[in-house]
Amino acid sequence: MTDYTRFLSPTGRQLTESAIRRMGTVVARTGDMVSFAPGYPDASLFPWQELREISTALLDGHDADALQYGPTRGYKPLLESALHVLACRGVHATLEQLIVTSGSQQGIDLIARVLVSPGDVVLVELPTFTGAIAAFKNVQAELIGVKLEPDGISLDRLDALWQQATGAGKSVKLLYLVPNFQNPTGSLLSQAKRARVLEWAERRDVLIVEDDPYGQLYFDDVATEPETRPICADDRVGRVLYLSTVSKMLAPGFRVGWMKAPEALIERFDTAKQSTDLTSGILDQHIVHEALQRGVTDRLAPRLRELYRHKRDVMAQSLSAKLGSRLTWPTPKGGFFIWATLPDGCTDIALLERALQHGVVFVVGSAFHVDGTGHNTVRLSFSAPSPERIEEGARRLALAFAS
Amino acid sequence: MTDYTRFLSPTGRQLTESAIRRMGTVVARTGDMVSFAPGYPDASLFPWQELREISTALLDGHDADALQYGPTRGYKPLLESALHVLACRGVHATLEQLIVTSGSQQGIDLIARVLVSPGDVVLVELPTFTGAIAAFKNVQAELIGVKLEPDGISLDRLDALWQQATGAGKSVKLLYLVPNFQNPTGSLLSQAKRARVLEWAERRDVLIVEDDPYGQLYFDDVATEPETRPICADDRVGRVLYLSTVSKMLAPGFRVGWMKAPEALIERFDTAKQSTDLTSGILDQHIVHEALQRGVTDRLAPRLRELYRHKRDVMAQSLSAKLGSRLTWPTPKGGFFIWATLPDGCTDIALLERALQHGVVFVVGSAFHVDGTGHNTVRLSFSAPSPERIEEGARRLALAFAS
Repeated sequence: MTDYTRFLSPTGRQLTESAIRRMGTVVARTGDMVSFAPGYPDASLFPWQELREISTALLDGHDADALQYGPTRGYKPLLESALHVLACRGVHATLEQLIVTSGSQQGIDLIARVLVSPGDVVLVELPTFTGAIAAFKNVQAELIGVKLEPDGISLDRLDALWQQATGAGKSVKLLYLVPNFQNPTGSLLSQAKRARVLEWAERRDVLIVEDDPYGQLYFDDVATEPETRPICADDRVGRVLYLSTVSKMLAPGFRVGWMKAPEALIERFDTAKQSTDLTSGILDQHIVHEALQRGVTDRLAPRLRELYRHKRDVMAQSLSAKLGSRLTWPTPKGGFFIWATLPDGCTDIALLERALQHGVVFVVGSAFHVDGTGHNTVRLSFSAPSPERIEEGARRLALAFAS
Repeated sequence: MTDYTRFLSPTGRQLTESAIRRMGTVVARTGDMVSFAPGYPDASLFPWQELREISTALLDGHDADALQYGPTRGYKPLLESALHVLACRGVHATLEQLIVTSGSQQGIDLIARVLVSPGDVVLVELPTFTGAIAAFKNVQAELIGVKLEPDGISLDRLDALWQQATGAGKSVKLLYLVPNFQNPTGSLLSQAKRARVLEWAERRDVLIVEDDPYGQLYFDDVATEPETRPICADDRVGRVLYLSTVSKMLAPGFRVGWMKAPEALIERFDTAKQSTDLTSGILDQHIVHEALQRGVTDRLAPRLRELYRHKRDVMAQSLSAKLGSRLTWPTPKGGFFIWATLPDGCTDIALLERALQHGVVFVVGSAFHVDGTGHNTVRLSFSAPSPERIEEGARRLALAFAS
C-alpha cells in the first residue's frame, strides 16, 4: 500500500487537534456518560417552532436564491441584520467591513491564513480557546500565553512578552482575546483594561482578534450589560477584528457567524474564503436572517441568560456539596464554564482517567495552555446537561476523587 | 489609519480570486444581463416540495442533534447514505475512508493544506476549474497544465511534464482531474485513459485528486453511464482522493459534499477541518441525508439529464443560428458548459468587454489556463438560464461580435 508520509505538507505533519473535539469523540463512544466536556448550548431552548415556520416559508419555492449558490461575502439581508446586531452592542460598521463566516471558527482560520506567516507570534490568553490554538498552530504560528488576572490579561506581562519577542527579532502580529466570559475560564476583561489594551495595540502595532461568542450571556447577579461592551466598539483606528456567531444565541448547527474588520482586510478574507468553501450555507443564512428579523434571538436572550445562570448555580452548589474544598473556582460572570483548580498532587489527566471510569467527562485544563502548564486545572461545562445530570456528574466526580 | 501590508502572510499577499466569482459580482451589479458565466444549476428543478416536507419534519424538535454541534467527520447517517451513493457509482469505501465537506471546494482546500507545501507541483488539466487553481495557488503550489485531447488529458504530455519537473528537483505530489464533463470544457476522459492514468500515478508515486460533480449528468445521445465510472472505482492501492457533492444533483445552497480517501489521510483532513469550520452545516446534513434516503436525488437525476441536454441543444442551435461559424465547440457529452474557440484575431477579454455592453456575460477562457494561454476561448454555461434567455444571450453575443 501507499506510504503517505512524503505527501504531507508542513501543516499536514503537525496538525493540531482540538482537545474539545477529542473529548467529544470519547463521549460519543460510551453510553451513560455525564458530559461536562464540550461547550454545547442547551438544545431545549432552540426555538424549534419558530425555526420550523421560517424554513417552511423559505422552502415554498418563491425565492430560488434560498438554495442557490450565493455571494462569498454573505447573503446581503443577513449582512444587514448583522450590522443591526452589532450596532446594538455598540459596534458600528459598514457593509464593506463585514463578512459572513461558517461559524466563528472559520473567522479565526481566515485570519490565521491571511495574516500569519510561519514563525509569527500570536499572543493569546493563558489559558485560551483550543480552537484558536489549533487554527494558529496549523499555520505554524508561535503562540505565547499571557497570564490572566481576575479582571483579564495582565497588561504588564503582555507588554513584557511583546518586548521579549520583538527583541528576539520575531514579528508579533496578533493578540487573540475572548474578553466576555472567556473560554475556558469564564472571566470578564474589565472595561478599564479594554481601553488600555486597545491603546497598547495601537502603540505596539499589533492587531486584536476579539472573539465574542458569549457576550450576551452575562449573569445579572454578578455582571451587567455595559461591562460586556466589545473592545471593537471603541476602536477608531481599525485595530480590532471582531468575531461573532449565532451558535450560542440561536443554534450552532447553522454554522453562521460574521466578522467585522477593516475593509482592506475583509477583501482578502473574502478572496481566501472563495477557495475555502465558496460560500457559507445559503439556506442557513436565510433562516438566521429571518430569525433575527422576527426578533427570535432578542426574545430568547433573557431566557438563555436565566437558564445558564441557573445551571451555573446548580453546578457550583453540586460541586461544593459533593466535593467540599477539593475543587476551587471563581464564580463565572457569564457563559458556559466553570474553571476549577485541583488540589495539590492531583493532575488533570490522572483525574480525567478516573472520571471516565466513573462515567463523567470534562476537558483537561492543560489543553488550553500553550506553554505546557495548567495540569492543575479542569474545565467543567454546565451549559448542555440538565440540572439533574449536573448533580449526577458532580456525584461521579466525587467518586473519581475518592478512587 | 493602520497600514495592513506588513500583517499579510505569503498566502494573504498572493490570494488568487476565482474568475467565476468575479464574474458573478459583475452580473449581480447589472439589471437585465443574460448570464452564461457561473455554473449555477437550474433552480426550477430544486425539489422544493420534498425539501420542505423534510425540513418541517426535522424541525419538530424530536431530534435535538439536528441543530446541535456534530462530529467534524460528518453526520453518521449521512456518511452511510454517501457510502451507498458511492457504491452505486462503483466506488466501494468504508466509513473510515469518508469525510463530509462543506461542498467539494472544501475538499480541494483540505487536500491543498494537508498535502501541498510551497513550491510543490500540482499537475492539472489545461484548462481546469478555477476554484482548484485558486485553492492550490493559495498554498503556493506550482501549477503545471497538461494539454487536453478529445478523450481527456494527453498521457504522453503528462509523463513528459512529470519527468521535466522531477528532473528539475521538484516534488510532484498531485494530479487534479475532473474526468466527467470537465469544468470548463465538458470533456469526458475515456475509460482506457482512466486505467492508464491510474497505472501512471502508481508508477510515478503521484496522488490523483478526482473531482466528480457532474458524473451523473451524462447526455444519453452521446454518452453512457458506464463511461462515467470514476477512476476511484478501480483504485486498489489508495492512489485516488475522490470528491463528490450534492450541489449539482440536489441544490448547492446546502454546501454538502464528501471525500473518499485513504484512511490515514482522512484522519488528517478531519483534524484540519476541525480548525477550519469545526463541522459542516448540521441541519443541511440532516436534510441531505433524508433526501438521499427518500430517493429524491434518484428520481431527480433523469429529469436533470434531460433538462440540461435540452439546454445544451438550445444553446448549440442558438449559437449556430446567430453566430454561424464564428464560434466552434465540441459537443458536450454532459454537464453545464460549452467550451468555444474564438475566430483568429478575437480575444476573450476584448469580446467580454463588448458582450457586457450588449447585456451578456461569460467567463474568459484564459481564467482556466494556468500557463497564461487560452485567450482564444470562452466558457458558456447553459445550465441556469431558461431556453428563452439562452436564445436572447446568443443574439446579444452576435451583436458583441458585430460591434
